[in-house]
Amino acid sequence: MADFVLDPAFAATAAVLGELPLCHVRLQLDARYPWVVLIPRLPGLRELEDLSVADRARLVEETVLAGAAVRAVAKVLGLAVDKLNVGALGNVTPQLHVHVLGRRAGDPAWPGPVWGHSPALPYGEADLAKAAAAARIALNV
Amino acid sequence: MADFVLDPAFAATAAVLGELPLCHVRLQLDARYPWVVLIPRLPGLRELEDLSVADRARLVEETVLAGAAVRAVAKVLGLAVDKLNVGALGNVTPQLHVHVLGRRAGDPAWPGPVWGHSPALPYGEADLAKAAAAARIALNV
Repeated sequence: MADFVLDPAFAATAAVLGELPLCHVRLQLDARYPWVVLIPRLPGLRELEDLSVADRARLVEETVLAGAAVRAVAKVLGLAVDKLNVGALGNVTPQLHVHVLGRRAGDPAWPGPVWGHSPALPYGEADLAKAAAAARIALNV
Repeated sequence: MADFVLDPAFAATAAVLGELPLCHVRLQLDARYPWVVLIPRLPGLRELEDLSVADRARLVEETVLAGAAVRAVAKVLGLAVDKLNVGALGNVTPQLHVHVLGRRAGDPAWPGPVWGHSPALPYGEADLAKAAAAARIALNV
């Protein structure tokens, strides 16, 4: 079996948080949204249907855990979370990945989707350290 | 326990396909995209975390089945599917629901998300009947 290779697009837009049993986990580098990205660590994946039933069950549980991490990041950044958004699109980067992010009424893209809406706002160094630490505690990574 | 009540927004934008073990299933009434919507039939749901672990595993399997239905709808409509998009947003209609739809390079919203992009294109009567029939066969409902 070929090795898992991460699309370089993820490294350009998101910082490593750690590894869950199925997924490589990153923090999206957009300080406007508490936002975690899950990338299953198996080669050649594009769609949910490419995962086994057992790995799909793992992925949905890791998605829920990512939601808890999003809430933890929001808390340290002082952002409300009115609704979680979960999306697996892949139109630009087809490697299977799941976005989990927190939305609040009045956020820049509200109530539309964040993907493709507007350029990311870079994190300040202190906020990035706080956000990543909070996410890692919630994820236990 | 309170009864399941479907948000009226779904009836306005999507036609009934049938019932899977967990979800009420609808065909989104936008002829530009093969598009299925899953709504878990339990009261008071907003987020994935509100479902039990067993129901989350059911939901991800029904999401994969909805993907097969999307491919079947695309086939009878003569549309390519280059990528499936899966999204649970709920910023406008917070009742938990999962969109599963087929995207093709050059479709009206490509490569951005479809949600909030532009008004739906109504189905013609014959295409709607064909699409719904193909979806029901794929879903076995």
